[in-house]
Amino acid sequence: MIIEIYIYSVGKNKESWLTLALAEYEKRLKTAAKIHWVFCKNDSELEKQVGLESGWIALDPEGTTFTSEAFSSFLLKQVETDGKKLVLVIGGSDGLTPFLKSKAKSLLSLSKLTFTHQITRLVLIEQLYRAIEIGKNSPYHK
Amino acid sequence: MIIEIYIYSVGKNKESWLTLALAEYEKRLKTAAKIHWVFCKNDSELEKQVGLESGWIALDPEGTTFTSEAFSSFLLKQVETDGKKLVLVIGGSDGLTPFLKSKAKSLLSLSKLTFTHQITRLVLIEQLYRAIEIGKNSPYHK
Repeated sequence: MIIEIYIYSVGKNKESWLTLALAEYEKRLKTAAKIHWVFCKNDSELEKQVGLESGWIALDPEGTTFTSEAFSSFLLKQVETDGKKLVLVIGGSDGLTPFLKSKAKSLLSLSKLTFTHQITRLVLIEQLYRAIEIGKNSPYHK
Repeated sequence: MIIEIYIYSVGKNKESWLTLALAEYEKRLKTAAKIHWVFCKNDSELEKQVGLESGWIALDPEGTTFTSEAFSSFLLKQVETDGKKLVLVIGGSDGLTPFLKSKAKSLLSLSKLTFTHQITRLVLIEQLYRAIEIGKNSPYHK
């Protein structure tokens, strides 16, 4: 089974290092997950697009912080319960809109530190890869 | 004043995306800080090299987690107290050795999540840049 992971955010990938790094992790994830990056022009387009999904997990500084092992369990449980489609939302530069925050199935925080959107995307994809490797009990995460 | 930041770790930068990303932040930091990456072959060389320094801050999962604002205050206070040289240590794949951990001036955690060394270096340099920008009250971190 290939997990279909939709990651909604505002903006674009402009940095060449980010394009390279994300491509590397997408390649590694290929047999387990397909990442669909959905870029919206602004907060209201993000709300509109995400609002069409049946449920989503949103990244928020007030969200739950996980260890990578706990994040792996959380993620694999989500897939078990809700099926192979996973929807993740990264808020715009002012954070999540009240709608995206209050209607999210779960709120998740990657760190107490503030990251750029570029680094958020990279950390997120690496944790998704790590979560799957932990689930497989592979040596990657040791 | 240019802050001299020494970052000790085990291993090398092999990934081209990482080289590009770090170069971008080093360029942005240029007028405020110079980053010296010191790569050691293994844990014992890391201990030996870091042991020659008069003090260091080590990255550890059990360390203090900061918001970016608190990290900025912490860092600028360090420079104020100890002068313009800052020594940071990233442990090897088994984490910090007991010596490096117990003798550190402070232990710092970037996230409860486990990051690769590559992502740790990137997150760290971006937070150093962000810390300095916060100190200058620039619009970068808003």
